[in-house]
Amino acid sequence: MIIIDTIEKMREWSGKQHQQGRSIGLVPTMGRLHAGHMSLVNKSLETSGSTVASVFVNPLQFGENEDLDSYPVDLDSDEAMLSAAGVDVMFIPTKSALCPKGIKTFVQVEEITEYLCGKSRPDLFRGVATIVLKLFNIVKPQYAFFGEKDWQQLAVIETLVTDLNLDLEIVRGPLMRESDGLAMSSRNHYLTELDRQAAQSISTALKEAKEQIKSGEHSAEKIQAGIRRNIEKQPNTRIDYISLCDPVSFQECAAIGDSTLIALAVHVGKARLIDNCLVRRD
Amino acid sequence: MIIIDTIEKMREWSGKQHQQGRSIGLVPTMGRLHAGHMSLVNKSLETSGSTVASVFVNPLQFGENEDLDSYPVDLDSDEAMLSAAGVDVMFIPTKSALCPKGIKTFVQVEEITEYLCGKSRPDLFRGVATIVLKLFNIVKPQYAFFGEKDWQQLAVIETLVTDLNLDLEIVRGPLMRESDGLAMSSRNHYLTELDRQAAQSISTALKEAKEQIKSGEHSAEKIQAGIRRNIEKQPNTRIDYISLCDPVSFQECAAIGDSTLIALAVHVGKARLIDNCLVRRD
Repeated sequence: MIIIDTIEKMREWSGKQHQQGRSIGLVPTMGRLHAGHMSLVNKSLETSGSTVASVFVNPLQFGENEDLDSYPVDLDSDEAMLSAAGVDVMFIPTKSALCPKGIKTFVQVEEITEYLCGKSRPDLFRGVATIVLKLFNIVKPQYAFFGEKDWQQLAVIETLVTDLNLDLEIVRGPLMRESDGLAMSSRNHYLTELDRQAAQSISTALKEAKEQIKSGEHSAEKIQAGIRRNIEKQPNTRIDYISLCDPVSFQECAAIGDSTLIALAVHVGKARLIDNCLVRRD
Repeated sequence: MIIIDTIEKMREWSGKQHQQGRSIGLVPTMGRLHAGHMSLVNKSLETSGSTVASVFVNPLQFGENEDLDSYPVDLDSDEAMLSAAGVDVMFIPTKSALCPKGIKTFVQVEEITEYLCGKSRPDLFRGVATIVLKLFNIVKPQYAFFGEKDWQQLAVIETLVTDLNLDLEIVRGPLMRESDGLAMSSRNHYLTELDRQAAQSISTALKEAKEQIKSGEHSAEKIQAGIRRNIEKQPNTRIDYISLCDPVSFQECAAIGDSTLIALAVHVGKARLIDNCLVRRD
């Protein structure tokens, strides 16, 4: 595996792949890799002629009082995992190169960013869209891989690709869970042992919601109340949002339909965790 | 010359050029072509392996009370001019294809768009940046050509290319003038004979400002007042702005420096005309 840390060298490497007719798969990450990331990496290794995994903690997607400074970093562990998987390039651009102080150009995806995480974190998706577009322009992949844990992010990136006529395919990977059900996330490193027990209530609440729906409960209000009760009875939890919504427009639903997204964000100790699942009226 | 009117066919044609190792030059226009556009076309023909001229009246860059509906269109004349010049492709995407109703993604260049035309026309540069980026992504040119008549637009596009790491070169063409000095513009078609005479005062005022500076006048305020007097004494004129500013940041200058831009926008009859020149302290 080659490690590339400048935009120029990345561009050069990509140019050579294209000349040789080899397709490129890109897995953009913020590092501190886990099995969720690696499932995307493996998908890329199966799909693409060569695979680039980028590791960049994107300062543009953090708000002022968020966890940019404490975001977990472990480049050695990331390198070992990517190398063992057979990735071709680990791309680790510097902050000053990818996100220089004088940057003036930003990409905004409207409407669908007014809900869920976009509502709680108003800088988030502008930052994601801008840096992801920059990575696309540098790496020039034919495929880019994103996980469904960040469901709304995926929608933002798919919209960006369509609207800006980008010539690449977005490939979705499923949300991956720890053995106790907790959605895999680099931010799980923030959790103390006690927090971790409390955090389990998030996936448990989603599971119970699914069972409720299977038993014929279709009221969004009632299902939401059930999830809320389940999580609030745990210590150290503070719910940011619980939304039952359309999985494309993110508009709230009054009742479970043919395809409804249950998405939620919960602060547990120092971590803000998100989770989601798709449900349907049987 | 081939005329291409779909994004898919344009993409296909570009792909073939790249496969054959031929570079592409793109001249994006809103049509109603004049010698100013054609000087950019000729620059592209000299520089690029093949030349694409796009004609698209971009609805995103017009404000609500602006001239989108009356903007001059003459595709037959445009086609004849481009074909005679030896252009390879005239790209005329439809409004519904390039700018579909559900479009949610927009590109915003900040700071430098707060001045001059960006101040008077708040939708302008967001619309320009978004559609120009889409054209770049579809045509994938190595070179793109823009005229210095739209000096601020050029700065916006150069900033966009740098900030988003686009792999192409922006080539500037000089502002072209009619024999009486009027800056060439498709919007000159709006002028009646009387307006046309009044409009001449814009370039005359710039010429006199240059002479004033040569004679040692460096006060931005005094030079601006001179330009204003020159234009205001003509009938049917209404000044939008006259700015003496830095040619990169567009911040106002108090005095002429090593490189100062004089930029102005003036309503003459139904037309809003812009002009500019670069001046320096001798």
